[in-house]
Amino acid sequence: MESSDATDPGNKERLERTKTRESYTFQGQRGWRKWRILRPGRGMYHDVKRRLPYYWSDITDALTYRAFASTVRMYFVNVLPAIAFTLDMYRRTGEFFGVNEALFASALAGTVFSLLSCQPLTIVGVTGLIALFNYTIYDIIIQYDPSIYPAFTAWVGIWAAIFHWIVSFGNYSDYMAYVTDFSSETFGMYVGIIYCIKGVEELVYLFEVSDFDGGYLSIIIAIVYFGSVYGLEKVGNSTVFTPGIRSILADYSFVFPTLFWVGFSHIPGRLENTGLYRVPIVGAFQPTVDRNWVIDFWNLDVGWVFVAVPFGFLMMLLFYYDHNVSSLTAQARQYPLTKPAGFHWDFFLLGCTCFVGGVIGLPLPNGLVPQAPVHTDSLTIYETKLEVTKTKDGGEIRKPMVEATAVVEQRISHFLMALAIWGTMTGPLLTVLHTMPAAVFAGVFFVVGWGSIETNGIVLKARYLISERRFIDRDEPLNTISRKKIMLFIGLQIFGVICTVAISQTIAAIGFPVLIIALIPLRTFLMPKWFSVRELGVLDALTANNPTVLVSFGGTPSGMRETEEIARGVADAESGTMAKVESARSRSRGRSAVRQRAGSITR
Amino acid sequence: MESSDATDPGNKERLERTKTRESYTFQGQRGWRKWRILRPGRGMYHDVKRRLPYYWSDITDALTYRAFASTVRMYFVNVLPAIAFTLDMYRRTGEFFGVNEALFASALAGTVFSLLSCQPLTIVGVTGLIALFNYTIYDIIIQYDPSIYPAFTAWVGIWAAIFHWIVSFGNYSDYMAYVTDFSSETFGMYVGIIYCIKGVEELVYLFEVSDFDGGYLSIIIAIVYFGSVYGLEKVGNSTVFTPGIRSILADYSFVFPTLFWVGFSHIPGRLENTGLYRVPIVGAFQPTVDRNWVIDFWNLDVGWVFVAVPFGFLMMLLFYYDHNVSSLTAQARQYPLTKPAGFHWDFFLLGCTCFVGGVIGLPLPNGLVPQAPVHTDSLTIYETKLEVTKTKDGGEIRKPMVEATAVVEQRISHFLMALAIWGTMTGPLLTVLHTMPAAVFAGVFFVVGWGSIETNGIVLKARYLISERRFIDRDEPLNTISRKKIMLFIGLQIFGVICTVAISQTIAAIGFPVLIIALIPLRTFLMPKWFSVRELGVLDALTANNPTVLVSFGGTPSGMRETEEIARGVADAESGTMAKVESARSRSRGRSAVRQRAGSITR
Repeated sequence: MESSDATDPGNKERLERTKTRESYTFQGQRGWRKWRILRPGRGMYHDVKRRLPYYWSDITDALTYRAFASTVRMYFVNVLPAIAFTLDMYRRTGEFFGVNEALFASALAGTVFSLLSCQPLTIVGVTGLIALFNYTIYDIIIQYDPSIYPAFTAWVGIWAAIFHWIVSFGNYSDYMAYVTDFSSETFGMYVGIIYCIKGVEELVYLFEVSDFDGGYLSIIIAIVYFGSVYGLEKVGNSTVFTPGIRSILADYSFVFPTLFWVGFSHIPGRLENTGLYRVPIVGAFQPTVDRNWVIDFWNLDVGWVFVAVPFGFLMMLLFYYDHNVSSLTAQARQYPLTKPAGFHWDFFLLGCTCFVGGVIGLPLPNGLVPQAPVHTDSLTIYETKLEVTKTKDGGEIRKPMVEATAVVEQRISHFLMALAIWGTMTGPLLTVLHTMPAAVFAGVFFVVGWGSIETNGIVLKARYLISERRFIDRDEPLNTISRKKIMLFIGLQIFGVICTVAISQTIAAIGFPVLIIALIPLRTFLMPKWFSVRELGVLDALTANNPTVLVSFGGTPSGMRETEEIARGVADAESGTMAKVESARSRSRGRSAVRQRAGSITR
Repeated sequence: MESSDATDPGNKERLERTKTRESYTFQGQRGWRKWRILRPGRGMYHDVKRRLPYYWSDITDALTYRAFASTVRMYFVNVLPAIAFTLDMYRRTGEFFGVNEALFASALAGTVFSLLSCQPLTIVGVTGLIALFNYTIYDIIIQYDPSIYPAFTAWVGIWAAIFHWIVSFGNYSDYMAYVTDFSSETFGMYVGIIYCIKGVEELVYLFEVSDFDGGYLSIIIAIVYFGSVYGLEKVGNSTVFTPGIRSILADYSFVFPTLFWVGFSHIPGRLENTGLYRVPIVGAFQPTVDRNWVIDFWNLDVGWVFVAVPFGFLMMLLFYYDHNVSSLTAQARQYPLTKPAGFHWDFFLLGCTCFVGGVIGLPLPNGLVPQAPVHTDSLTIYETKLEVTKTKDGGEIRKPMVEATAVVEQRISHFLMALAIWGTMTGPLLTVLHTMPAAVFAGVFFVVGWGSIETNGIVLKARYLISERRFIDRDEPLNTISRKKIMLFIGLQIFGVICTVAISQTIAAIGFPVLIIALIPLRTFLMPKWFSVRELGVLDALTANNPTVLVSFGGTPSGMRETEEIARGVADAESGTMAKVESARSRSRGRSAVRQRAGSITR
């Protein structure tokens, strides 16, 4: 790999380990060899070859408490939003996609990706974007013939699968190496806003299905649920109690409030008598509408089959960005990972789940933001160390400093979570699900959405701009560039957020992936004309810069090396080591949005 | 005054100024001269003599923006809780005390105390305790003859007035010099808890007078109102924007949310159709029940007149503590006041308002905690200075440091606030009041109550105890004494809080003043046996230690001098100057509860 990665001793060591298996790159290739499509499956082959030797350790490494805590946490963090999105999708697709489909999709994806993927840290499941996609397609289809909706979505899934396979065999995931905080923060902000909008929409809907009293009570439950989870996480992040107690509060910050507020909604008397809308269910393992699991997609008019092609392509584009960014953020620069990534193989696998999901009528699963980084975060061993700064007048200032020392990289927590979801599909647990007021899911939307907004780099940079200047640390790296450039940078991000949020409210929502992907070439080709290399180095950085991750793309893209070198210099100057998290200074810095987003959700 | 006050140059200077008029003390007196009652009115005489020369400056000093902002703020902070308590009192006294009585009492007290008192910073009005007193008396009286309730309360007021006059002529307010944080924090915590309980009771009551939907909507309004005010205050306390914008947000943190959420509750459609309970009103300047303003107290059986004696005495005890502690906290040690206090004269004046209030059937007004310190705080000129700590490794740490540089000591803001309350009693403004949902007042309870709890010294010391030890600053004064002693200290406070809160829920609630006053001798006579002088110096301090305040008591009580000297040493070591507020260290320190309580409410 290139010399720029070798400056820091930690990277050097990791580099040594990856070098031996380094044999995949398209950089510096000449002639026909530089055409990725002409060497099909090369990325996938190297992905598997690189990762397979770690398979046994992916099982044995899991024998820790962290893997257990992670399983419990991820079950809640994965299932609750999935059901939340399904409640929305259910009523907007003529009740075609219900809770059983969402659970099936999550369980299927969890099983496949925990057992077969190169990146078992990436949690795959039902996202808000697929809900948006599915009901936008529904809105389009019902203008012609509602009855073909199932077969049409099946074909969309089949075409999407085919495009996935083309991309993965064509080694096109390489381009994800260009993803920087510029687009991943924009995407994170978009996702956070959509989550919050969905939360409000859910509450508005509850006024329709329950009376005014049920609607108002739902708002109360959503607010207190949000407050409880958020509060537990804040305490878990503080310096009260012992590290053990704090870790339990943070690990189970979704579990306790969910149990408590579901129970609360059943207190006999006034509360139980209020007609709350609860999660609608059908028989165990049954499709929500009366149909076979396998959709008779072969009966669709051939004209419609071809209409499904562009939809399938857009679906692939969506997943190309969403799934790969999920994997990138799950392996982002703040996590000290040692096992190699494999983007090509995983995208191939995603094609397979698209195919199966399409044929049996599931909402197609893909990589989850912010759940995937939350998974890594919940597996990270953080040590809250004491940082004592001696002052010149002989005093000292004591600050907690959270350091990520290692990650329990394994596939068992993912697998057990999938098993738990299969279990949820059985009759008794489905009945438990039915006791949950839908209001809790509105609360889930707010927790997850706000977690994605609060520590987003856009917000942190905006806060830097509105802070009274004299209180800003003199060694804050943002001080070295002009405020206008910072405004331009976040202005472009905010413009991207506005465009994507706006399009999501219209029937053109399926064009959304084009917009979000357009941010990558904007960043790569246009922004270097408006910003100096140094400015980009301070404002931006590769979302994942760990050599064990970049190896799957064939290394740091040559165009990004200079900027990245500055970014690393900035990060080093700032914190001494790449792995430090949450120091007050780096929070105010406003760069590590994804890292901090994940952090804010877990500890 | 005594030498211990002269150690610090700031105090010395103030001391010089007070010395010339120092002529009142009972310390060191011998023979019959040491009996306070034998030299009646001596304290009052000196109070007035000391303060009168400042009367003209009390008017001219008011020509500042701060006085205007303070007027607006105090109008809301005074009137909203007064109405909130009245809603509670209204339904628990057979609708005898209504909004008109509460406004009348507040306006009367405001006029009298702004014009005639020695301590115009002390806001006087309707408290939760008087509400508690009045409905407990009602609970007792209705067991015999409900019709005598008006005349009986009139007599309670008359007797209370007589006892006030005895105390003020007898110079007994001197004993308030013994009030330390031990009892004022306990009282602050008690008040905070009672406010929060009242907020919940109010919301529960709203389920009775409106339907389930109105009840639930009320809960939502209370929560969001609380969140809005609290959030504005947090932003006002932060370092974003400019000091000017922050100051506006903090000054009007009650105004904007009140206007917004009252308007919100009237949005046509779902919200307006929800039957919200709104403030009940009657004709302008009319008593709530059909009666003359002057109660025919002369028609009460003479037996009942004498039954009213102990009630009047307890009422006086309540005010003795509550009113004087309000004045003390309004002139507490963190405010750089220069004009002299006058506790004896003000207590005499309070007797007069008790008499008038009793005869015309008002809830008797007295000094308000936490509104009185909020008043001083809103008049304090704070400068957010930059504290740069140089670190040994050549870096620096920048922290905002809020310093109280001066207080706009005057009586005009108090007087204008009283005029505004008279205005509120007129027809048009009374109608405006009627548009307010009662839920907003539940929110007011939570804001004021939580403000009194969040930064209470008991909470801060408890937080010190549960914090992980390695993160505690090494020069934290609490480190120098054993944790067991800290636990014992706050354990006694918590015991006091539990007893007073518990008794408030019973018909024995009128015995409450005895309990709270008992904390003073407990602190003065018993606790020095359980704690060393040094421990008490670190854990406790006089609530007001400014010579210009203590002068009204004849100086620091001799028994408290040694402890107080240590406490000042601790305070000096901690912050360099007495006037610094809100540095992170002093927050964690856990001593200046009243100061921080006020601070948390205003900026």
